[in-house]
This record gives sequence, structure tokens and C-alpha cells, in this order.
Amino acid sequence: MSSPYGLHRVLEPAGVLPQQAWRLDPDPRPWPDEVVVDVERLNLDAASFRQLREQHGAGPAVRAAVLEIVAERGKMQNPVTGSGGMLLGTVREAGPESPLGLRAGDRIATLVSLTLTPLRIEDGLADWDGEGEQVPCRATAVLFARSIAAVLPDDVPDGLALAVLDVCGAPALTDRLVREHRAARAAAPSVCVLGGGGKSGSLSLAAARRAGADRLVGVVPTEAEAARLRAAGLADQVVVADARDPVALAAAVGAPADVTVVCVDVPGCEHGAILVTANGGVVAYFSMATSFPAAALGAEGLAADVRLLIGNGYVPGHAAFALDLFRAEPGVRTLFESRS
Amino acid sequence: MSSPYGLHRVLEPAGVLPQQAWRLDPDPRPWPDEVVVDVERLNLDAASFRQLREQHGAGPAVRAAVLEIVAERGKMQNPVTGSGGMLLGTVREAGPESPLGLRAGDRIATLVSLTLTPLRIEDGLADWDGEGEQVPCRATAVLFARSIAAVLPDDVPDGLALAVLDVCGAPALTDRLVREHRAARAAAPSVCVLGGGGKSGSLSLAAARRAGADRLVGVVPTEAEAARLRAAGLADQVVVADARDPVALAAAVGAPADVTVVCVDVPGCEHGAILVTANGGVVAYFSMATSFPAAALGAEGLAADVRLLIGNGYVPGHAAFALDLFRAEPGVRTLFESRS
Repeated sequence: MSSPYGLHRVLEPAGVLPQQAWRLDPDPRPWPDEVVVDVERLNLDAASFRQLREQHGAGPAVRAAVLEIVAERGKMQNPVTGSGGMLLGTVREAGPESPLGLRAGDRIATLVSLTLTPLRIEDGLADWDGEGEQVPCRATAVLFARSIAAVLPDDVPDGLALAVLDVCGAPALTDRLVREHRAARAAAPSVCVLGGGGKSGSLSLAAARRAGADRLVGVVPTEAEAARLRAAGLADQVVVADARDPVALAAAVGAPADVTVVCVDVPGCEHGAILVTANGGVVAYFSMATSFPAAALGAEGLAADVRLLIGNGYVPGHAAFALDLFRAEPGVRTLFESRS
Repeated sequence: MSSPYGLHRVLEPAGVLPQQAWRLDPDPRPWPDEVVVDVERLNLDAASFRQLREQHGAGPAVRAAVLEIVAERGKMQNPVTGSGGMLLGTVREAGPESPLGLRAGDRIATLVSLTLTPLRIEDGLADWDGEGEQVPCRATAVLFARSIAAVLPDDVPDGLALAVLDVCGAPALTDRLVREHRAARAAAPSVCVLGGGGKSGSLSLAAARRAGADRLVGVVPTEAEAARLRAAGLADQVVVADARDPVALAAAVGAPADVTVVCVDVPGCEHGAILVTANGGVVAYFSMATSFPAAALGAEGLAADVRLLIGNGYVPGHAAFALDLFRAEPGVRTLFESRS
């Protein structure tokens, strides 16, 4: 019996989830609910690549290290950082019971981490010089029933599509939160996006507008970013403030928001997000730099009746939704291109 | 000018909120909107006490560590866990502009964390052996305009009242989540509480039952705890499992729950909680040992469409609600007494 979570691919130690496993079975023959992918390119996680370069130095040594990790572990999970990355490739074969809706020949990107994706490299990474995070290769990968992959669009260049897919959880959750607020209160919520000029932030602003938000505030750290966000037309109000300074942030934003989305990837934004949110409102944290205790104790310490969400990168339909926003909103595309 | 959030008490670094501050001014003379409390007892956060014990070992060394933290920081905030606890005492003086409604002589417990409460210890903790979370002491503390404190009830012993108030956010949020689910789906949700035999866990089970939950599952780590929870009658199903082992936990729980509440104060429960939760469900993390990235990436890696909440310790009315549950449910009291 195969497991939708890939437990049947775990070789060592037995009984853990693939992400926690030391070694996976990368055999490129699919179980009935699996999909096998011909990999074109790995995108190594930035932290992982940096560590490999620091430990191993020159490109050929980095390449040898990646080959050794994948040969040893059956997946590309840096044993030091614990992180992986994502991949891009073409579906070779979809098992008859796979629920992912993929067909042989589909060009896809995986939206689950390489840390849980069985991988076998077949070309010794001959086409990679070991000098960058983008690793062209000939390899096979396995997707489980509960994996997530997005078919790459024809009309968006790969690089931009990958950037959109990388952050597609934030706009999808923003959309839900705005709609839920409207349904529960019969009123359009105001929305504040910290980091509104960035990739996930600009998509979240666009999602909030489309879902019927009332007042849209985008917070950015510099005047230059503010000018770009104003030109993009995604927010009603653009505020320049340091999101790590709760007191200054609250003063700059003014009236608190019903929904606050944190897209700033620096530590220390927990309390500012709470302070700019109205009682009865919600904060969605999408930054991996968020501290759980800082957020929990912050709300309590401020006597803030605010719901705090850990931004889950998975919402059904999130990839198509984000690509659709990207296509429909020229301002989003402009901001993405200014950051790539 | 004093600030309702206590900014005027921050010594280092300047301009941050009291919780983020390294050092507060514990001077026991109130500003006009403050309240000064004669402290009788501190209740250290469980994760903090565990860490102190692991680092320092014996009671006297733990006591010395707490004294040093408070002397250095002007508050009891464990620098490793970032967490604090709460306190019990008697109002010494309420400033004329304090909005908290407290008067000199009121016996109170603070419901804001010790991490943001200016504190000065005056007896060297001479009456504490360092062996438990409850710390008898002579000390002074300061409450700000936006602090939260509950007047202690006459009919519940202090130790028990304090223990109830310490965790009163969890049952209040559980109540809301169950009611929201019922309103949105027109069906009673199933509820799984990890750590159902503990203080916040047993109150959360009682809150879920009262709010109209359907199937109540309590997960505990040992057979002895299972026997106690069964005897307390708070759960429909009592499961013995290690909440840190996602695969074993999911197998033991069986059908996934609509609402999962995490009350286990050990690291590594993020993925198990997600695995036992149904798609479209919600996980409320009340353990300060929760890792934000582990929860966020775990849900993504499992393609789990689950809402993840950071347990906010503040919900209006939470203190009275929890005390009321405690009075009404003999099973809760029995479990509290078995743990004190």
C-alpha cells in the first residue's frame, strides 16, 4: 500500500514523514497514486546553496557535494540547513490513481519542498558548474498523492512564473480572509499589507482588491519602493514605515485594519502587525522570520482581541489564482520585474 | 507622558514595546494611569521553567537564575524561551487615571505576561526552593493602562485560580472555534486536544463540550494520564500517543478532527497536529514550544488545507469563562488537583 504522504518511500528511519527521513527511495517507477517527473532544473534554496558554497568552496566541489547528498539521501535536503528548494520538469508518467490531475508531457513546477521529494540524478550534473542556485540537470523525481505541483503557463516566462508560484499562498489566504470578513460582518474590510511592494505583498494587495476590500494600505520601507507601489496602483494608501517598529508603524498607518498581511521577511514584525489591526481583526503572518512566542505573547500583552494566523503555503487552487492575478494586474507584473 | 502600552518603562533599547525590551524600569511608584502591585507569587511559564531546569539543574541554581534574570532585565522573561508567566498579588496603589477598575487591597492575578511586566524582587526568593513553577515571593510589579488583571475569586483556592487563569486563553478560543464551525457548517465539529489531560487541555475539552462539539478526543502521553482523563469524563475518546510522532499519532487518533487544540508544551508537535486535522479544519497552537516555520512548512509539505492559529492568550471575558468552567466541571478540578 502506498501512502498519500509518501511513507512508503521512507527507507530510514522507518515510520517518519519523508521530510524528516534521512533516506528516501527514489526509484523512478510510480506507485499507482504517484507521478514521476523528468527533471530539467533544481532551484536550490538560497540558504542551502550559501552553506554548501561556504563549506565546499569552488563550483566543482559544490557540485560533488550535491551529488553526494542526493546519492546518499535520495532527496536534495542539505543536512546542515535542513532546507531543499523546488524543481521544474516534465511529467514522465502519472499513475492511474494519482489525484494530481497531471498528464505525461505537462511541464510543471513542484510546490512542495525538495526536502520530501524522492530524487535521482542521472547525468552527474554535467551541465552545472556549481556556481549558482539554478541547477540544470537530467534527473527523476516522484510526487505523492498529497504533493502539489503547478502546470507552468505558456504565456508567462519560466522565471516569473516560478517567482509567482513561490509566493502563491499569501494572495489565496488574503482572498479567503477578505471574503470571510464580508460574509460575517456584511461590510468590506480594510486591509493592511506589510511589505506591500514585494512579490507576495503585491499579489496580496491585488487579491484583497479583487475580493472586495474597502481601504487598502500598503506599507513599504523606503520612498523608492513607495513610488513604485503608488505607480502600480495596487493600494489606496502607501505608507513608508519600518514594520519592525510597532509604535512608529501604528502612527504611520493611522486607523487600524480589519485584515493585516505580513509579507516582510525580517524578524521583529509581530507586534507592529498586531498594533495596526483592529479589535476583532486578523493578522496573517507569511514571513518565515515570524517568532511564534513574540506573536502570541504580543497580542496578549497588548490586550488585543486579534486572530493570529500562521500563513499556510497551501490553499487549494492557489497557483492558478496567483497566476491569474499576475496576468490581470499589470501593476503586479511591473513590481515583479523590478525585483527580478 | 505615560503610554497605555508601557513605552515609558522601557530602558533598553529605546522605543520598543515592553515585551521586546531587554530591560524595563521596575520602579514601584505608579504613573497616573498605572497600578502597582505587591506580588505574593509568580507562576512561571511551563516551557520557561522546563528550560531553566534543564540548563541549571538543581533548585538553588534555578532560583539563582531567576533572580539574575529579574535583576538584569527588570522583568521575568526567560532569554532562551522568550516566555514569562503571570503573578498574583494585592493592589498597593492605583493611579488616578488607571482604567483597570482596581482598588488598593484588591487581590488580583495578572493576565498579561511577565515578559512585559516591570518586576522587582525584594526577598531574594528566600521562600522558594526552585523546584516548581509556583514561586512565592515578596516583590512589586507594575500594570499599564492596557494591561489585564483579574480579581481573584473567593470560592477557589489561590493556587487553583492562578492555574486556571494562566491558561484561560485556550478554552476561550476553543469555545469560539467550535461555535464558528457550527455556525458556518451547520454541523457540530469533532475536536482533538493534544495534551488533553493537562490544565489548558482539560479546560479546552470542557469548553468544546459546552460549545456543542460532537466527538471529543483527548490525547495524552501515558496510560496513567489516560486513566485520569477517562475518570474525569471530559473526552469521548482518550488516546495514548506521542504527539511528536505524526504518523503514530494519526494512526492512534483515527478519523481526523475539525478543530485541533495543541496544549502539549514540548517541541515537535506541529506536524502531528496538522495530520490529525481534517481538510478545511483548524489547528490552534497554544504551546510556546511551537515552531512557526515547522508549522507553516509542515502544512505545505502535507498539502493540508488547514487553518493554523497562533493561540492568542487574550479573548475578552476569558478569565470569568475559564473560572466558570472550572466550577461547573468536577473533572477539570480533579485533573488540576492531580497536577498541582
